[in-house]
Formats: sequence, C-alpha cells, structure tokens
Amino acid sequence: MSKQKSICDVPGITVGHYTLQNENHNTGITFIRPKNNIVDLKMEAGLHIINGFGKSIGTIQVQELGEIESAIALTNTMAAGRVTDFLTTYSIDEYKLQNKQLTTFNPLVFECNDSFLNDIQDNPFSYDNFLTAVNQASVDFTTGSVGAGTGMSCHQLKGGIGTSSEQLQIGGDTFTIGCLVLTNYGVLEDLIVNHQPIGKHLIKTIPPIETIDKGSAIVIIATDLPLSSNQLTRISKRGVVGLSASGSIIGHGSGEIVLTFSTANQSNQDSDFIQKQYLDNKHLNSVFRSTIKCIEDSVLNSMLTSEQTTYKNHFRHSLSDFI
Amino acid sequence: MSKQKSICDVPGITVGHYTLQNENHNTGITFIRPKNNIVDLKMEAGLHIINGFGKSIGTIQVQELGEIESAIALTNTMAAGRVTDFLTTYSIDEYKLQNKQLTTFNPLVFECNDSFLNDIQDNPFSYDNFLTAVNQASVDFTTGSVGAGTGMSCHQLKGGIGTSSEQLQIGGDTFTIGCLVLTNYGVLEDLIVNHQPIGKHLIKTIPPIETIDKGSAIVIIATDLPLSSNQLTRISKRGVVGLSASGSIIGHGSGEIVLTFSTANQSNQDSDFIQKQYLDNKHLNSVFRSTIKCIEDSVLNSMLTSEQTTYKNHFRHSLSDFI
Amino acid sequence: MSKQKSICDVPGITVGHYTLQNENHNTGITFIRPKNNIVDLKMEAGLHIINGFGKSIGTIQVQELGEIESAIALTNTMAAGRVTDFLTTYSIDEYKLQNKQLTTFNPLVFECNDSFLNDIQDNPFSYDNFLTAVNQASVDFTTGSVGAGTGMSCHQLKGGIGTSSEQLQIGGDTFTIGCLVLTNYGVLEDLIVNHQPIGKHLIKTIPPIETIDKGSAIVIIATDLPLSSNQLTRISKRGVVGLSASGSIIGHGSGEIVLTFSTANQSNQDSDFIQKQYLDNKHLNSVFRSTIKCIEDSVLNSMLTSEQTTYKNHFRHSLSDFI
Amino acid sequence: MSKQKSICDVPGITVGHYTLQNENHNTGITFIRPKNNIVDLKMEAGLHIINGFGKSIGTIQVQELGEIESAIALTNTMAAGRVTDFLTTYSIDEYKLQNKQLTTFNPLVFECNDSFLNDIQDNPFSYDNFLTAVNQASVDFTTGSVGAGTGMSCHQLKGGIGTSSEQLQIGGDTFTIGCLVLTNYGVLEDLIVNHQPIGKHLIKTIPPIETIDKGSAIVIIATDLPLSSNQLTRISKRGVVGLSASGSIIGHGSGEIVLTFSTANQSNQDSDFIQKQYLDNKHLNSVFRSTIKCIEDSVLNSMLTSEQTTYKNHFRHSLSDFI
Repeated sequence: MSKQKSICDVPGITVGHYTLQNENHNTGITFIRPKNNIVDLKMEAGLHIINGFGKSIGTIQVQELGEIESAIALTNTMAAGRVTDFLTTYSIDEYKLQNKQLTTFNPLVFECNDSFLNDIQDNPFSYDNFLTAVNQASVDFTTGSVGAGTGMSCHQLKGGIGTSSEQLQIGGDTFTIGCLVLTNYGVLEDLIVNHQPIGKHLIKTIPPIETIDKGSAIVIIATDLPLSSNQLTRISKRGVVGLSASGSIIGHGSGEIVLTFSTANQSNQDSDFIQKQYLDNKHLNSVFRSTIKCIEDSVLNSMLTSEQTTYKNHFRHSLSDFI
Repeated sequence: MSKQKSICDVPGITVGHYTLQNENHNTGITFIRPKNNIVDLKMEAGLHIINGFGKSIGTIQVQELGEIESAIALTNTMAAGRVTDFLTTYSIDEYKLQNKQLTTFNPLVFECNDSFLNDIQDNPFSYDNFLTAVNQASVDFTTGSVGAGTGMSCHQLKGGIGTSSEQLQIGGDTFTIGCLVLTNYGVLEDLIVNHQPIGKHLIKTIPPIETIDKGSAIVIIATDLPLSSNQLTRISKRGVVGLSASGSIIGHGSGEIVLTFSTANQSNQDSDFIQKQYLDNKHLNSVFRSTIKCIEDSVLNSMLTSEQTTYKNHFRHSLSDFI
Repeated sequence: MSKQKSICDVPGITVGHYTLQNENHNTGITFIRPKNNIVDLKMEAGLHIINGFGKSIGTIQVQELGEIESAIALTNTMAAGRVTDFLTTYSIDEYKLQNKQLTTFNPLVFECNDSFLNDIQDNPFSYDNFLTAVNQASVDFTTGSVGAGTGMSCHQLKGGIGTSSEQLQIGGDTFTIGCLVLTNYGVLEDLIVNHQPIGKHLIKTIPPIETIDKGSAIVIIATDLPLSSNQLTRISKRGVVGLSASGSIIGHGSGEIVLTFSTANQSNQDSDFIQKQYLDNKHLNSVFRSTIKCIEDSVLNSMLTSEQTTYKNHFRHSLSDFI
Repeated sequence: MSKQKSICDVPGITVGHYTLQNENHNTGITFIRPKNNIVDLKMEAGLHIINGFGKSIGTIQVQELGEIESAIALTNTMAAGRVTDFLTTYSIDEYKLQNKQLTTFNPLVFECNDSFLNDIQDNPFSYDNFLTAVNQASVDFTTGSVGAGTGMSCHQLKGGIGTSSEQLQIGGDTFTIGCLVLTNYGVLEDLIVNHQPIGKHLIKTIPPIETIDKGSAIVIIATDLPLSSNQLTRISKRGVVGLSASGSIIGHGSGEIVLTFSTANQSNQDSDFIQKQYLDNKHLNSVFRSTIKCIEDSVLNSMLTSEQTTYKNHFRHSLSDFI
C-alpha cells in the first residue's frame, strides 16, 4: 500500500495525539507543530470563519496580524479552555529552556463537539495527557478515531482526523500543500464520495440515525509556497468548496474554520524594513484547486480510517463498512 | 412542459430585461423589482461577498444596515456606473410622481464581465434602454442569453440568467425561496451536472477553449419567510455551497456576491419601538438546504436555456448542445 | 459623596472580583454576571474588534449569532485559557443543579496584559479563586486596582477596572446604558482628561516611564434598551470614540474589544416564529452619544480609583496623585 | 504665510476640482490622481469602513486584493453613479492612447450628501465637467468649498475639502503621510478644536441650526512608506481616532470611509515570485500617530478654508467666522 499523503509532506510539520477511550470517554487531543523550534515562531497565515457557531481560540489575532506564533491543538468543545491553558504553560516552559521570557502569546486551540460519543461534561485531560500528544508528534501519525478525532461524527458516520497533500510545480520548483481536518458535521443523506451521492442510498440500509446539531469542521492547511497573509486568507475562503465536495451544507450549528499558514518567509530580520517574496497572483487558481482537492481527500481519509465506535447506547458506523 | 420555477414565485417580485445583440455587442441589463411600489421600499437583507474581485455597487450599506431600499440592476462590469446613474434617476422620478423627495438612495447594481463575447469598452446603454428593462418587468421572464446574461460565459460554455425556486412548509404555512443568478465563471473541466463531473468528459470532445479570468457570479435570493438581517446574511454565506455544486472553485478573478432579502416585516411603523417576527433558528438548516438546491438549479437553468453565441472569432457552445 | 454610577444600574447585572496582590503578583479575575440565573441565558449582543492584537475568547460565536450565552470573565492574558476552563466547569455545574445538561457552551473571557506589574508567566489561579469572584458578585463592587484590573497600566499610570452609566428617556420610559472597562493601554503623553491634554504636562513632572507595548482595552456595555444584534454591533463600533476621548490611539499592540448586550427581548419563546421589539434607528444617535460618554467616564473612573502600585522595580503612579 | 501642508507632499499625487455654484447648486467633483500615468497603476492599499451608511463605489475589490488600480473621484451621493461612468470612460480612453485595452477596471468613487446646500436630485454633471477636474489636477490645489466639498456641511458649519501632511524619520530616511478629507457630518455641539470643546460655546451664539442626518466623512491617506495591505488597513482603522479628535461621534447616518494607499512597491515584476519590502511593525505606532494628527489637521483645514454658503433658505457659517 502506498504511503498516505499527509500535512507532514510540508517540510517541518509534525503531528501527535493523545487518545482516551473508555466507558465514559471517546475523546482526545491532537497537537500540530508547524516547525521544530516553537520559540520565536511567526509564520504568515490567513484564517477564514465559514460559520462562527464555534468556540475555537486564537482567531482574532491571526485575522488582525496575518501570522501565527503558536503550535495548534485540537480537542473537544468543553475542553478548549483547559487545553489552551496547557498550551500556554507548555510554551512558557519551552521559552524558559532557552532562557527567554514569554509574556504574551496567542495560543491556537480549535474544537469540535464530540458529545454524541463522549461524556463531554466530564473533562478528563491532565497536563500529562497534553504532553503525551506533544511528545508523540512526528511526521508519521495515525488518522481516523485518534486524538481529537476519537469521538467525532461526520455525516452521521464516524468522523475524526484526516489528512492529505498535493504538489504543485511553479517556476521549475515543486511546492506542497498539506491539509489536516477534524470532521464532525453533516447528515448521512448529504454524503458525497467521488461525486457519488452515496448518502442517499446508504440511508435506505442504515437504520435511522440520531442527528447531531453540534457539529464543526476544522481545516488546517500548510504550505511551503511563499504567500502573503492576504493570499493565505483567500485560500482559506476556498475551504468551503472542499468541504461541500463531500456534502457539507455548512449547517447552522456547525462551526467551520479554516487556517492556512506558510512555512516560507521566516527569516528573522531585525531591521526597519523587511524583505518578502510572494507568489504572483496569476498562480492562485492552481493553489485554490490543489487546496480544494486536498481538503476533499482529507475528509474522505478521516471517514475511511475511522472505526465503528460505541458510547453507551450511541453508535456510529464507519464509512469503510460500506465502501 | 411544466412552468419553470422562478424567483417570481415569491409574491411581489418582477424581472425585466434589455438585450442588445449585434456585431459588436452581446450585452444587456436585467432589472429585478422586489415589490411593486419602490417608494419607501425597505426590506431586511443580508449580503455576503464570497470573492470581492468585483465592482458591484451598493454593498456596504446593505452590510451595515441589513436592509435594501432599491430595485436591483444587473449589467456588464464597465457599464455598472452608468446603470447606477440610470437607476438613481429612475428612482428620483418615481418618488416625484408621488410628490416625494429622494435625497439619499442606495442603488444596487451588480455586474459580471462579458468581455469575451462583447465589446465591453464601448458602452451602448441609454436611459431608454434601462427603461425598457424596467417596463418589461413581469412575473414571466426569459432566462439564458438575455438581459445582463446576453454575453456571459459559464464553465467556458454559454452562461447567463438562470432562476428557480423551492417551497418550505413551516408551522402549517408554505413559504417560498426564489433565486436568480447571473453566471459567468469557471472552466469546463470543473463542470458538474447532477453530481456528474461531465466537464471532464466534455473537454475531450470540445476543442480547446480560451479561459476567461474575468468571471463573476451574482446570486439574488428572495423569500417571504420572515428573517432577520443576521439570518439573511447567514443564508447568503451558503451561496458558495450552491455554486460549488456545479463546479465553481471561486476563482481568483471571479467576483462572487450573494444578496438575500425577505419580503416579510415590511409594515411601516412610525413609533419609537418596532415590532418584528422572525423564524426560529431551529428551522435554518431547512432554509439553507432549500437555498443551496435553488442556486444549483438556477445555475443549471442559466446554462441550459442559453444559446450558442458568437462574437467576432469568439464562440461559446450551449450546455444544451450536449445534454 | 454621591454613589458611583455603574454598569449595575442596568437591572440584573452583578460584578465580583478575585484580587491577588503579593511580592510576585498584582493580578486577578473579574466576573460579570449579566443576569441572576445563568441557565438558558441568551441575550442579544454585538461585538466589535477595534484592534485584534489580543487573545480574548468567545468572540466568533457572538459575531455569528448576535447573542451571548455566558457570564463574562476578565483576567490577564496568560490566564485566559485557565479562566475559560473554570468558567466552563462552573457553568456545567450550575446546569447540573437544575438537572440540565450543558453539552455546548460559548464562554466569554477577555484579557489584558499585566506583565509590567505581575509575573504573568506564573499562573496562580485556582478554581476556588474563580469561585471567589463568582460568589462576591453583587450590584456594589469596587473599581480601580481590583480583580482583573489589579496589575493593569493605563497611559503609563495605574489602570484597572472602571465603570459608569447614563440614562436615556425614550417614549416616556427611562432606559440605562452601563459600562465596565478594563484599561491597560497608551502612553502618558497622549492622556486627555475632560478635554485637557494633561498628559503633555505630566510628562514634564514624572520621570521617564517605561512604555508598555502589550496593552489592551476591554469595554463591556450593557443596556435594558431593546436592541437588535445589528444595532448592538453598531453601538460597539462607537467604542473607539469613547476610548480616544481620553487619548487612546489604538496602539499596534493594544487589543481593543467592545461587547454590547441588551437585557431586553429575553422571553423564552418555543415556537416557529419569534416576536421581537426593537428601538427605531432614529434614536440611535442618542444611544451612541450616551455610550461614548459612558466609556469616557468609565476610563477616567478606572484611573482615578486605582492606587499607586509597585512590582519589583516597576512602579505606576495613580492619576489621583495629580488631579 | 507658510505653504499649506497637503496630500501632494507625497510625491506623485495631484488633485483637481470641478466646482459648480449657482442658484440651484453648490456641488462638484474632486479628482485625486495617485500617480502621473494611470495605466497599469496598482498600489497596495487598505480600506476601512467606519460606518457603512454610504454609497461609495469600488470598496469590495480594495478589501479583497489590498490594492487600487484607479484614480479616485469624490462627489455628491446621487452623482456617484454618473461620476463612476465618467471615470470608467476616461480610464478606457487613457488606455487607448497607449494602444492598450481596458476590459476590467475598479473605479473608486466616494461620496457625501450635500443636499442641505444643493439640489441633489438634479444631477448637472457632464463628462466635460469631469474632465475639468482631471485636467486641473496639480500639486497645488485649493481647499474648502471647492470640488466635491462645495456644498458640504461639517458640525453644522461649512465643511468641504481639507488636507495636511506629516513627516516621519525612519532608518535615516524621511517619509511623508498625506491626507485629504471631504467633511460632511456632525452637530455643532460636539465640535472640538485643538482640544477645546468650542461647539458647546458656539451653540449659544449661533441661532438653532437644522441638523443633517445625511452626513459622511471621506478620508484619503497617501504615503511613500513601503507598507503591506495588512498594515494599510490597520492604519485606515485609526481614521476614526482622527475624526473623533474634532468631535465626530460616527453618527448613524454618517457613512465614514478611510482609504490608505502606498506609492512604494510599484515595480512591475513579471515573474512567478514578487519581491516586496515592508516597514517593520515596530514602527507602526509612529505611523498611527502621524496619521491621526494629519486627519485632525485636515478636518480643521476643511472647515477653516470653507466660506459661508447660502442655498435658498439654507445657510452655513464658516468656522473662520468665529476663530
């Protein structure tokens, strides 16, 4: 079997999980490290809120400044505050190891609501659990029902963590666009796979399934293309096309957020004027197209690699049970 | 043949066209009248700019106040200023007929770029042409290569004016969502019809077709559901799902705008406090789904009812040549 | 002495503090309860981000839905995650007391950076500290160097918690606009008090003072006027006028956020269509003017009631040392 | 008398007016040319809508792409469409002189409502009038009751065109920030001049004056500092501080818009990747402060250089009648 394409195909990115599965819990934390040394990390970024019915943390500064300065954590809705606290503590400690002070910091914590398969009112996460996700981070990571994806539902089947990547040739060089999604939205009837509206057929064979209203989709896009925050924001806006390719209608209760960042243009210039290099806009349609494909494939990956999951009298099939 | 479902299925709305087709021109004006008497018209509205690479006029006041106070005109990019002037003059004159003064007014003029099939640098429109569109307005109107749609291209085939409607039952009553689109974007390869990616097949039989970069999609949604400007804005945001259903990737150069307005809540209350009635949010997903379907069908209608069009050495097939 | 006008002049609102002052810390938590029973609280609201260089939590859902469903906590930048966790836990527990499940929740936690007068890297807050602020909440609360305001600086003097209110007569009834601010921004030179640019004079008598770059201003406006989320957002946008009246230039590093909510229109209607009553826009300028006055007075109140504060070799005068 | 500081202190910018004053009209057109040759003009820009109750044209593309590609015209509200048509025609013709085709174009036309001193329902402008403003454009231009400012009112006195500039030293070089305003908003009571709330005194000596609700403020900022669209947008957001310094409360009916553009970074690079140079953010507060001062001075300039104006039974004093 060929290796799964992943967000880690963009050089420097690593991903780790903490997964908790027991009688009361299907939940977890996923940690995305945009580069090895988080100290003084600033990367140009763009963020688009497709539907703001969500509780993700750190969005306003990214929108104001067009940059990120933090690793990214994904978790369940009610744990977002605690994980933000852990990410803050961890980042202060990382700075201290380098004899630096971290007195301001914009943590990025995105969430989906796993309450259909998890006792979301009971927050089980300790700082050690968070560190497990951090320490596990590598370029090889699992997808599906792991980390923050453990208890998620997508189109009334099992959702979770998915990933993919695409390559682009520009000016003789090869660049990569990588994507990681946390999928937790939608109804079965709307599901589309490879342009086939299979949801309309599946609802005939699967007994009526409880709808969740508390959805969400988190889409993280990384690239080594040199792009401005304006361009990265515009790429993020195409995220909705990627999600709708597999049937999302951006439901009322589904908080959908896309963050795109570039690993280029990171040179630490201590001067009055900063030099930048950006892709010319004439290439943007190629970038949009690759991003959309990458998101569609990541959503499918999240569903196909997730396993059937039971929580009390709630149950989710895996898409892989059917195709 | 069954009657075409249209935006005019929402009571009160009428549509008229002025169409100009000759050696140098395939262009026109489409006029949408939200209700019969334009004087003192204010309707709650929401507007979403999917991609702001466009020149449409009147958007900022709709976004600020959540209401429209004008009829809507569609035309080509370079004529937007002149049509705005005509719509202003016409509205002042309508007021005068009622012995009223119109000393401030927010005209709504939306545009797409028809320069592939039209000499867009030569603006042929007179005030009489504009009045033709106004006077022609009725609940029965033609679609395809008419009015503002005369010279438009969609997925490298002929685009233009399209329309459709959907009905919803809520609380024992029937409500209507209507849509009118002006389609002028995309490449053939991306075209999807009824979930079939037929564009990928058509490119094999149709000789290479020049790409247009100067696209745009204008989507006008009307409904008699009582909705707040917040709800109408959120409905407008789902417009991108409707457009992507037939293959739009929201190209870099494609200005895509969605305006949604409600014909309810129009009572003219002269008091300190205004009474309103709004749909409860629990019904929004039904409204979103109907809107998305309505847009997808309107796009298809715009393409199927448009005819093959030639301008000098430029040519567009109609989708109806193939299906 | 006349009673200080305060945000609690709007019926139903209470405020409490937890204050920590010792060798290492000048910091705290301020808790604002919009009404007595937090369960099922939803109030129409509007939020405006003047400058997004900040880490406040809960903003995107308020902007999407135009409502709040949580009490509001203020604290220091690096503690925002932990206080969000506490507010979440507390709200779940409050629901449980009523035999209700809280499986989704949008906590509102706003922050300023007190690192000039506080060891912000060391987070001392326990859940009991948070409960102290909650339990202390009443209509009588102290201002100045208390709660979240304990370690804040404003115009290089001591900042902190400030409050005020204004009354409006509309249609024979009296309505109240209340404000609470957390002030932590600006340089001395810019300070204006009652139209007097006293900062320009004070810099001659006060020895050179270290500038802080990590500012912020949090402005919470409450009113019993029946206002829509559109109107509440537009009121929030006038917040910058109130802040600039005393000399704010909205510095690059100063995250400035205004949240406005209405205690009207709270009836719990379980039906398909919801009835609302809103102030007519013709009265908005009066509301804007009262809000601006209320913010200006609150900022002054925050500075005049704050006391001289020392942290290691850092020191802030109180404005009351000079006027 | 020292020369008036002006927006034309930024190298390359010229300004011209067409002024119409007769029994029925006090109105006009002001033309701002950002550089000599308008062909292929693209400058990085940022636009902020303080209050969207206005009809200005061309805003959405500036916000999407962060650049301008047009000269800027100012006029009265009801003439905005016609002036847009003229600016479009003129730009097409300019291109033709260079044997270039202009098939897409984003005209920038900003407006205020002069209906208190002008028969705004009667649009007197011909294309020749527009060309007068164009041909008159130079680095020396008049302010006050000229061009688009002819019929404007500010704080119930005479408003109009105002300008100023500020210089900044950065890294051994001198840069200029220039401003041009069109002022048409506010009530006398709120007027502040040099921190003196003189409006509160003037209302005692000037007989009661009719309020206008249909205000607006247009603020155009130009600079030769190399700034990104993100930075230029953030500068535009500080425009409200400049306007409020002289007493604006951003009235409900006052459409207030700030456009900032940079004449730097214009090299025409035809390559896959574009090189840029930007000011480091650490200098932004200096830029903000200069911009705010420049706007405050421009507003004062607009009022002091405007003359008493009468239209039928309407009259406006000049501020210079009193100070």
